[in-house]
Amino acid sequence: MPEHGGNLDVALQRFGGHAQDWIDLSTGINRQPYPVGELPPTCWNELPSPSAIQSLHRAAQQAYGTEAPILATNGAQAAIQWLPHLASRGRVRILSPTYNEYAAVFLAAGWEVTESSDLAALADADIAVLTNPNNPDGKRHEPSQLLALLPRVGRLVVDESFADATPALSLAPKAVLPGLLILRSFGKFFGLAGLRLGFILGNEADIAALAVMAGPWPVSGAAIEIGSRALLDREWAEATSARLIRDGLRLDDEVARRGWTLVGGTPLFRLYETGDAKLAQERLARAQIWSRVFSYQKGWLRLGLPGDETEWVRLSAALTR
Amino acid sequence: MPEHGGNLDVALQRFGGHAQDWIDLSTGINRQPYPVGELPPTCWNELPSPSAIQSLHRAAQQAYGTEAPILATNGAQAAIQWLPHLASRGRVRILSPTYNEYAAVFLAAGWEVTESSDLAALADADIAVLTNPNNPDGKRHEPSQLLALLPRVGRLVVDESFADATPALSLAPKAVLPGLLILRSFGKFFGLAGLRLGFILGNEADIAALAVMAGPWPVSGAAIEIGSRALLDREWAEATSARLIRDGLRLDDEVARRGWTLVGGTPLFRLYETGDAKLAQERLARAQIWSRVFSYQKGWLRLGLPGDETEWVRLSAALTR
Repeated sequence: MPEHGGNLDVALQRFGGHAQDWIDLSTGINRQPYPVGELPPTCWNELPSPSAIQSLHRAAQQAYGTEAPILATNGAQAAIQWLPHLASRGRVRILSPTYNEYAAVFLAAGWEVTESSDLAALADADIAVLTNPNNPDGKRHEPSQLLALLPRVGRLVVDESFADATPALSLAPKAVLPGLLILRSFGKFFGLAGLRLGFILGNEADIAALAVMAGPWPVSGAAIEIGSRALLDREWAEATSARLIRDGLRLDDEVARRGWTLVGGTPLFRLYETGDAKLAQERLARAQIWSRVFSYQKGWLRLGLPGDETEWVRLSAALTR
Repeated sequence: MPEHGGNLDVALQRFGGHAQDWIDLSTGINRQPYPVGELPPTCWNELPSPSAIQSLHRAAQQAYGTEAPILATNGAQAAIQWLPHLASRGRVRILSPTYNEYAAVFLAAGWEVTESSDLAALADADIAVLTNPNNPDGKRHEPSQLLALLPRVGRLVVDESFADATPALSLAPKAVLPGLLILRSFGKFFGLAGLRLGFILGNEADIAALAVMAGPWPVSGAAIEIGSRALLDREWAEATSARLIRDGLRLDDEVARRGWTLVGGTPLFRLYETGDAKLAQERLARAQIWSRVFSYQKGWLRLGLPGDETEWVRLSAALTR
């Protein structure tokens, strides 16, 4: 299976300690999560009802500024797992480097996978995949650029897992266009990755096909309840976006003292050129701070943003040690 | 989409009232659920770790009395959704009547679907599917009968969603046999259908293939936490099994007064011949008790078991009205 951030197991095996003592910055999951609050027992005891799922869909459409057909999935990952089954096997082209599950999932399903760093090279793909803003390097594509590519591919999948704080980048408002599919992650921006909630938006036929594949109860009662509340809380979202953008710049400042340079990032994570990322990772790990390195780029270290002030102080100390 | 029990939306539309005023007996979900208890914040905030998923798998293996490879899924339904993708399209034969998602899911994936009421007619299928004990009629198959069928089919899928209280029927201990796949539901017996947790057991190659299809985070943090606790609580399971069996007989007695006869059942639901199930359903619905009818058998009414004594009293009154 592909390597992922968010796997503290590896850190514990290599560096010891207890999970709760570590600060896990190996992901882009917001460490100041949306408050879960009280949950009604029906969340647990009953099958999710079609009307509850519809309400969740409406909340997500509102949050993402779109009226396009939408499907809630067991994390954005679940939508990725079904993508290769939307069409007969063909050629998928992936704008790389990016989230490594795309190549793995399409390969496992028997597709011909090409990875390219050039947007124009996605043309003629049966399915073209890109992430906007991109993970891990934060690269951004203007909606107009992507709309120009759309007629040149069978389907264009735009993964907007890290787009919550930069809504101007989002193609969700246009997701109804033929061939366009937009993925959204709930858990990263809202800091609730364990809930497993994501969405896919697109035209009616594709979303209907995906809904058949995902089955009648694609998400949990808790995901519906918490997701609906959180997505409608625009005040929280705006305050969080502002804080994340501020904190990203603060992190850039902190690491600059170590001589690391910013490669790019999103409001949820930053990617730095460190010269030797394994060494940098080990240094932070000795202070029980976990980070993400990349086998294909030896200098790159990706850091999520610390949560509360205690975490900032610990990171700062680890960086200046 | 196929019709399901557990859809109170329909009852509310037709008969009014608020969901919380209804007693939903249209499913086989235990109405005295396992207590959810306190959940650590990491359930919500972090991606489920491989080690936590492994612990859940071990708890399920222990509960199901097996060492066979196992995969936790987003409800047993999620495993059903992936079954047609385990092999190239072929012929699936389904012992019917049964849970109607099997035919729907295989048809949607382009398989040739045959339904038969004769176990022997499953022979020569690429995939044969049966539910044991069966939903909705409670029909039981001895493990030896099913093991005799196994060499005559490509794969044999045994859905044991209602087998928790009758472990002697289970083939989970033999799930490692080539071609055998066992599905287990967590939510029905433990009364936590909203959690979305199920399992599929089989040989190493099939479970590995399903794990690739399900992706790295197939279940939520809450499902892992609550599922692990509940599956290891054998005391609760034994007391619950005993109560369910007792309550099933009590329900049979109650409805006998109305002249309905038992077709069959499991400890989680009972199927009755009522003469006119739509009429019977309406009578109960006027007392805000929801039940399940079947378009293919006009007399059949399926009832789950009432939960607390208040619910029994309401059902009894509705039946004698």
